[in-house]
Amino acid sequence: MSSRTSSWMSEPNRNARGKVFLVGAGPGDPELLTIKAARAIASADVVVYDYLVNPEVLLHCRQGVELIYAGKQSGAPSISQEAINQILVDYALAGRTVVRLKGGDPFVFGRGAEEAEKLTDAGIDWEVIPGISSGIAAPAFAGIPLTHRDLSSTVMFIAGHEAGGKQRQVDWAAVSRAADTLVIFMCSQTISKISAELIAAGLLESMPIAIIRWGSYEQQETFTGTLAEASMIDSLGGRIPPPAIAIVGDVVSMRDKLKWFRHEVERRLAAETEALGDLEQLVTA
Amino acid sequence: MSSRTSSWMSEPNRNARGKVFLVGAGPGDPELLTIKAARAIASADVVVYDYLVNPEVLLHCRQGVELIYAGKQSGAPSISQEAINQILVDYALAGRTVVRLKGGDPFVFGRGAEEAEKLTDAGIDWEVIPGISSGIAAPAFAGIPLTHRDLSSTVMFIAGHEAGGKQRQVDWAAVSRAADTLVIFMCSQTISKISAELIAAGLLESMPIAIIRWGSYEQQETFTGTLAEASMIDSLGGRIPPPAIAIVGDVVSMRDKLKWFRHEVERRLAAETEALGDLEQLVTA
Repeated sequence: MSSRTSSWMSEPNRNARGKVFLVGAGPGDPELLTIKAARAIASADVVVYDYLVNPEVLLHCRQGVELIYAGKQSGAPSISQEAINQILVDYALAGRTVVRLKGGDPFVFGRGAEEAEKLTDAGIDWEVIPGISSGIAAPAFAGIPLTHRDLSSTVMFIAGHEAGGKQRQVDWAAVSRAADTLVIFMCSQTISKISAELIAAGLLESMPIAIIRWGSYEQQETFTGTLAEASMIDSLGGRIPPPAIAIVGDVVSMRDKLKWFRHEVERRLAAETEALGDLEQLVTA
Repeated sequence: MSSRTSSWMSEPNRNARGKVFLVGAGPGDPELLTIKAARAIASADVVVYDYLVNPEVLLHCRQGVELIYAGKQSGAPSISQEAINQILVDYALAGRTVVRLKGGDPFVFGRGAEEAEKLTDAGIDWEVIPGISSGIAAPAFAGIPLTHRDLSSTVMFIAGHEAGGKQRQVDWAAVSRAADTLVIFMCSQTISKISAELIAAGLLESMPIAIIRWGSYEQQETFTGTLAEASMIDSLGGRIPPPAIAIVGDVVSMRDKLKWFRHEVERRLAAETEALGDLEQLVTA
């Protein structure tokens, strides 16, 4: 056993200014919160939380905490990133301990870096507390290992849709050759188009894909099928409502053997006419 | 606030056979263990744990637990994967609750899938409890966001070295074009060669790289420099001892502004003659 143990704890707040903790709330299952995050939440005067944070995580808050909802849900008016940054700065300058609580991990498609930059600019003390990314938890709950000795030693995390609208160019031809497994975040509106791009880039039409909604929540729903079937969702008038994350690669086939989460609803992205029936249910879901 | 909350809990063991929990212990900081993992560990009759699990995590065990060390440390004789699989099966068949505790996440370079396959083959009930991957925590503690709106929307996780010796071919040219940020796991022996491959594949010699040892432990040590400097480690007779994970990409430059972890030891991969001096210290570290 290694003698290199760590008893490192978060730094207490040593000055009159407050401190901000950028905290990952993890995915749906509220027990996938870390002990460190639970402790930070319990110590907070103010918790600024997002749409995809399971509200049960807020049960760790102390009485009298100030809760600020900063969710950005598509279709509804929402608070801007600039306003969120300002809230964090203002409360910290007023000497409060602030938890900025984000679904998944703050530095994986969480825009935590932008908030950290603003805090640094304002001279405010901050720490990041990593969380379980839904890109790791959702496939695990669907019985899909991201890596496997025989099937995958490279995994790519890709933003299917960027909240800010500013989309960086993705080289799908390179992606299709570089990574054994793709994890496509926030892909509800784009997975049909992305699947078509991946086929055009050379991936097999028969390549397995899983689209997982509400990963690790009790209502987790997993669609499986092929890239060809996924590429037809849009043209068949189907729709996968958010939140959704997709896994593409041979590891998806492991699910037949490894699915273990009994609460999950299983669905199929069936081909052609069958698909339309399945997908119509979705539209009304 | 969403009404879709989850109070899902792990399934109790309902039959005479035991159950196996494949549990991610997270990275170094023992408080980055999830609540769910802590609960599973506390319920276990047997805990089979790896080298990179912080021993402090074992403090969650109940009295009388049977602890089995299954560490695979390079250079030392170690228990085979087949033997580990058999231990899990045998204890579960004997009706015991078993926690298989792995550093980071079980399905991210953790060989958890192989263990899950064997358990399924033997008809044993199992669950996976995701953990914080060191590929996410180490850069977060080094002040390096994996994604950033202006710098990175694609992140690739790559195995720098596969424990089993069976190496899948990596297409470095495709990797260099596909991903804005690379996270190279278990790269202690290979990072010099991989850096040279990335330069040959077209990445800039000046591309920033960080090599993080003991990520999120109190003794975290972060080397920064350029790909060119990293590519010279081997030829200069340097050595980065394990455990080490490397981050390559423009996001590494954010560290200048965002480093926050006061316990960290900062080091530089300096060029040419300077490097030799720095690296000699490493050899004796």
